[in-house]
Amino acid sequence: MDEESVKRIIKDLTEVVNKSLDDILQIKDPKRFYEAVRWLPMAGGKRLRPIIAIVVARMLGAELEKVLPFALALELTHNFTLVHDDIIDEDEFRRGVPTVHMAFDVPTAIIAGDTLFAIAYRELSKLKIDGETLREILRDFSQMVIELAEGEYEDVEFEKREDVSLEEYVEMIRKKTARIIQTACYGAALISGLPKSKAEILGKYGLNIGLAFQIQDDILGLIGDPKVTGKPVGSDIRKGKKTILIIHAMNNLKDDKKKELMEILRKEKKTDEDVNRAVELIRSAGSIEYAKEKAREYSKKAMELLKEFPNNEYKEVLKYLANYVVERVK
Amino acid sequence: MDEESVKRIIKDLTEVVNKSLDDILQIKDPKRFYEAVRWLPMAGGKRLRPIIAIVVARMLGAELEKVLPFALALELTHNFTLVHDDIIDEDEFRRGVPTVHMAFDVPTAIIAGDTLFAIAYRELSKLKIDGETLREILRDFSQMVIELAEGEYEDVEFEKREDVSLEEYVEMIRKKTARIIQTACYGAALISGLPKSKAEILGKYGLNIGLAFQIQDDILGLIGDPKVTGKPVGSDIRKGKKTILIIHAMNNLKDDKKKELMEILRKEKKTDEDVNRAVELIRSAGSIEYAKEKAREYSKKAMELLKEFPNNEYKEVLKYLANYVVERVK
Repeated sequence: MDEESVKRIIKDLTEVVNKSLDDILQIKDPKRFYEAVRWLPMAGGKRLRPIIAIVVARMLGAELEKVLPFALALELTHNFTLVHDDIIDEDEFRRGVPTVHMAFDVPTAIIAGDTLFAIAYRELSKLKIDGETLREILRDFSQMVIELAEGEYEDVEFEKREDVSLEEYVEMIRKKTARIIQTACYGAALISGLPKSKAEILGKYGLNIGLAFQIQDDILGLIGDPKVTGKPVGSDIRKGKKTILIIHAMNNLKDDKKKELMEILRKEKKTDEDVNRAVELIRSAGSIEYAKEKAREYSKKAMELLKEFPNNEYKEVLKYLANYVVERVK
Repeated sequence: MDEESVKRIIKDLTEVVNKSLDDILQIKDPKRFYEAVRWLPMAGGKRLRPIIAIVVARMLGAELEKVLPFALALELTHNFTLVHDDIIDEDEFRRGVPTVHMAFDVPTAIIAGDTLFAIAYRELSKLKIDGETLREILRDFSQMVIELAEGEYEDVEFEKREDVSLEEYVEMIRKKTARIIQTACYGAALISGLPKSKAEILGKYGLNIGLAFQIQDDILGLIGDPKVTGKPVGSDIRKGKKTILIIHAMNNLKDDKKKELMEILRKEKKTDEDVNRAVELIRSAGSIEYAKEKAREYSKKAMELLKEFPNNEYKEVLKYLANYVVERVK
């Protein structure tokens, strides 16, 4: 299948997801509150998680309607975590618009996030599947949210630490980013009637593209074009985020350069010059190539896990996505 | 059945709930994070919601084990909302200990609350009931959380308004307080095998004692003994909370006294003298008797709704609770 057809499928599914979110998140009383609930989900986004879930189900022969509530629950949960993470990270913009706590206020953003979470579970209650499968979906979905929370906690905690290891980093992004894509694939497979053991293989596909996705996110956060990514230059450096790039650079720079990088990262307020110098140091350590290579490894692993599943146009989309997550520029 | 036996049943169930929460909320890595997750649930509390759910199920002949995950999900959800509400209301103490955001920090408290919410749903996945009942439990539970959030939003929004009507107040406390007790009874009845129409009657019992409970809470917040309630004197007045007492007083005080009360409530910083004078004014309007009467009406209505259910010791507990919620001093 050519790339145009793949992109067409993705575009069509994006519209289905957008339209469904719009339906679910209609404004009602209290009006200002529901405006806050809608704010982030309706500001756009890649819809990667729901799209992957739908594509997995379609590859396995399930109808879109059967998996849709699950797909929407994923996107709503993703948005709920972003709303709360933005409060925690004091981020002021996302998707080109002010974050919920900036557009409204912190109390409203806390409750709006909680509401998105509850609406996600209300979607799960619409799944027309047997009791045992519903229980397993519910268990895995809840465990996923618990791990998302652990991952977010660790991400913030790592900012204060200078001894974060690569293993700790990978475990943190597994929980913070990859776990929800794992659940997207695993749950969609269960809903499509696959036994647990087979669904777990698709879960691993999701896990691997999730890890690749986050590493690419770290790279774009460092050297991406702000006009394309929508994120300010070097925002991870400014916050002291322990990304794979920073950790690799700290492990591989010579003493004096390592000291220089550490001193920049320790600064409360970092100038543009500081940020540029940090990028230079990280680049000189070969950390960007290292991270790129790691992301590609995960992507390749994901690709391999698809082998035993039916060859059809939706599998082509999954292969395309495994590549897209590491090659994307935004 | 004598009061001692009723109290013994409640005491035993409290211990079951406490022990189970302790089991679920074991500390693991990241350690400080799980300490924050455990903090409020393990600081005590009346356990009213899980106890009511268990007692309803036992009255209907269901085993404790069958309803226990649902009962725990209610208590965990209640605690999740308290953790977030305390951030929003800037409350520093609850259950005699610092609130989570005071003992830890706001970011940790936000994520700890989210985690309690997710753990609640993970409990629901343990329910050994058929798919259709599980879906209905899941739908009602999620709708409940959405309404809890709406109620909390309105509670905060009402602080800034001076024209809150009694109808708006009742609708707000229905969502903020009564809805979860309604779900406790409705869900427990469904789990026990009751058809929806019958379960809804028990839901109404819960709704009515929930309304009575909140009105009594308002009364205790005004004239309760701080040493017994654990809450500072006149905290609702200090925050400008629109309780039934304030609304009734504003509607019934003569012009000059109304103006005086309004001026106190408008003050950014209220002295102890201000608070005492406000209590005096509210008392002089007959608002305490009015609120007490309202609470007793709801309690009586709750009692009546129990008529058609089996007469056994657990029904006696439900009757006791309908009375307790309005007569309690803490």
